[in-house]
Amino acid sequence: MKILIGLDIGGTNTELAWVDLFGNILKKINYKTVQFSKAEQLVSVVGKAILEGNKNFISDEIIGLGIGAPNGNYYKGTIEFAPNLGWEGIIPLSQMFEDRIQLTTKLTNDANAAAYAEMLYGGAKKMSNFLVVTLGTGLGSGIVVNKQMLYGSTGFAGELGHTIVENNGRLCGCGRKGCLETYASATGIIKTIHQFLESSKQESSLRAIEKIESKDIYIAAQNGDECALKAIQYTGNILGKQLADYVALYSPEAIFIAGGLANAHSLLIPATKNAMEENMLKIFKNTVELFPSELLDQNAGLLGAAAMMMKRNN
Amino acid sequence: MKILIGLDIGGTNTELAWVDLFGNILKKINYKTVQFSKAEQLVSVVGKAILEGNKNFISDEIIGLGIGAPNGNYYKGTIEFAPNLGWEGIIPLSQMFEDRIQLTTKLTNDANAAAYAEMLYGGAKKMSNFLVVTLGTGLGSGIVVNKQMLYGSTGFAGELGHTIVENNGRLCGCGRKGCLETYASATGIIKTIHQFLESSKQESSLRAIEKIESKDIYIAAQNGDECALKAIQYTGNILGKQLADYVALYSPEAIFIAGGLANAHSLLIPATKNAMEENMLKIFKNTVELFPSELLDQNAGLLGAAAMMMKRNN
Repeated sequence: MKILIGLDIGGTNTELAWVDLFGNILKKINYKTVQFSKAEQLVSVVGKAILEGNKNFISDEIIGLGIGAPNGNYYKGTIEFAPNLGWEGIIPLSQMFEDRIQLTTKLTNDANAAAYAEMLYGGAKKMSNFLVVTLGTGLGSGIVVNKQMLYGSTGFAGELGHTIVENNGRLCGCGRKGCLETYASATGIIKTIHQFLESSKQESSLRAIEKIESKDIYIAAQNGDECALKAIQYTGNILGKQLADYVALYSPEAIFIAGGLANAHSLLIPATKNAMEENMLKIFKNTVELFPSELLDQNAGLLGAAAMMMKRNN
Repeated sequence: MKILIGLDIGGTNTELAWVDLFGNILKKINYKTVQFSKAEQLVSVVGKAILEGNKNFISDEIIGLGIGAPNGNYYKGTIEFAPNLGWEGIIPLSQMFEDRIQLTTKLTNDANAAAYAEMLYGGAKKMSNFLVVTLGTGLGSGIVVNKQMLYGSTGFAGELGHTIVENNGRLCGCGRKGCLETYASATGIIKTIHQFLESSKQESSLRAIEKIESKDIYIAAQNGDECALKAIQYTGNILGKQLADYVALYSPEAIFIAGGLANAHSLLIPATKNAMEENMLKIFKNTVELFPSELLDQNAGLLGAAAMMMKRNN
């Protein structure tokens, strides 16, 4: 039995797991990321755990270690300027792990990991061309073309969240204006609901909440709150319209919506699909499926980091 | 010596050529497309010419026939609803030629052919990820990812010309509004100059021309005509801004500008490059070269149709 090791480094939690080719997690260890104030500490603690854990498996069946991390660069195996992790500069994390554990190690960013997960364990198993959009604090995307992850010439390709949907629109964290992620993300929909609440006097259960989170909006919408429903519709409209442009470029078989905000999929996906079809170039109409990720309630980042070790990338 | 046969079917001219692997045209025949009122006639006349012409070459060195044509579908080998050719319905042109000449035949659209040409004979010989934008009557694009032409799930991927640059902008021939090609194309720049001339009283040599063509604008600009210069700047601004979004998705090494309007490259490319860099996400700044096609004055469509026979696509 082949074994993959996955390591998912997040702003809050870091998870390590041994996974089989069917996506079963055979052994898992959880860490708080904050305990690793330097990358060296993480490599030391997690590296030791890997060497210990490997004793449970026949070593020549362990294919390698896949790491998913914010600002991860696949080509260089580095984490570059990741403010969420509190680590400075450019860190050659793959190399550090290879030196420590003597196993092939690859690294990619969170959204690409989600796409690897969908490809090996989720709804994209038989697909050659698809997109995974992760709606979290921001909007990430993993693009698969001809069964290969798209990294482009820099290793940073796939920044759908930073394509412009509105000239001179909302200010984005990247310093530019009108990026898709300022509308279609947890942060974006919270901004939208505040705009709606401030610009109207419509009753809403959300007015009673001091600090509205995206899941409050989803819960209110499920209970029929008009403002919340309108915010989801608005988000889906903008996302769907931009996905129509995406389709004109890539013509994928399917688009998967993942990440925290995707839990609102029963409302968000129909709104997005309608806007996408309405804005689509004729030759692409009804050629693209829009699905919630099949791994929504699972460890997609962790599974994807592991899955990367099974995939040809270039 | 390996020989490729290329057939470039255009709205006005159709060209047939035998080409070597260095892009030398060994023999060429020209037709007026209008003489082929049906596809069957074209297959009959051109097919006969191919069988005759092949006698000049050792037959087992002839690799096959590549066809470039508007509305060509690579997967199906069909031309679908091509109003420019006056042929109706879906025509299985590849199959018709294979039956006639007993040689492997592939078919693609004009913009993809231009990208094959750049890849085999032009500036993209050593590149894995690049884009060719053809600025003609419309805006076509050929996208190469990991050395493969991007066709997507339908065979129609790469419609950069039909991504939206201005919500509710200019009406496009596709029925939607604000498509890039309504601004960045020969048709687009002519619309732009008319807007400029009508909305101002600025002197311009173009006012004396009854029916302004894109090359008139370029010539006027070279002679220092302010209106013409402004129109090229405006076109470059919009094209460059959209290319910045394209880069965020694909991260190519280079973008090549081809087609008739590209002859204005000494003015158009700097304007486009400035706008692209200015609007680019930080991690991509200064990672992408912008070049005029290396095959500008050559038979890029014809060479590209031939070149397609040398390239792996999926």
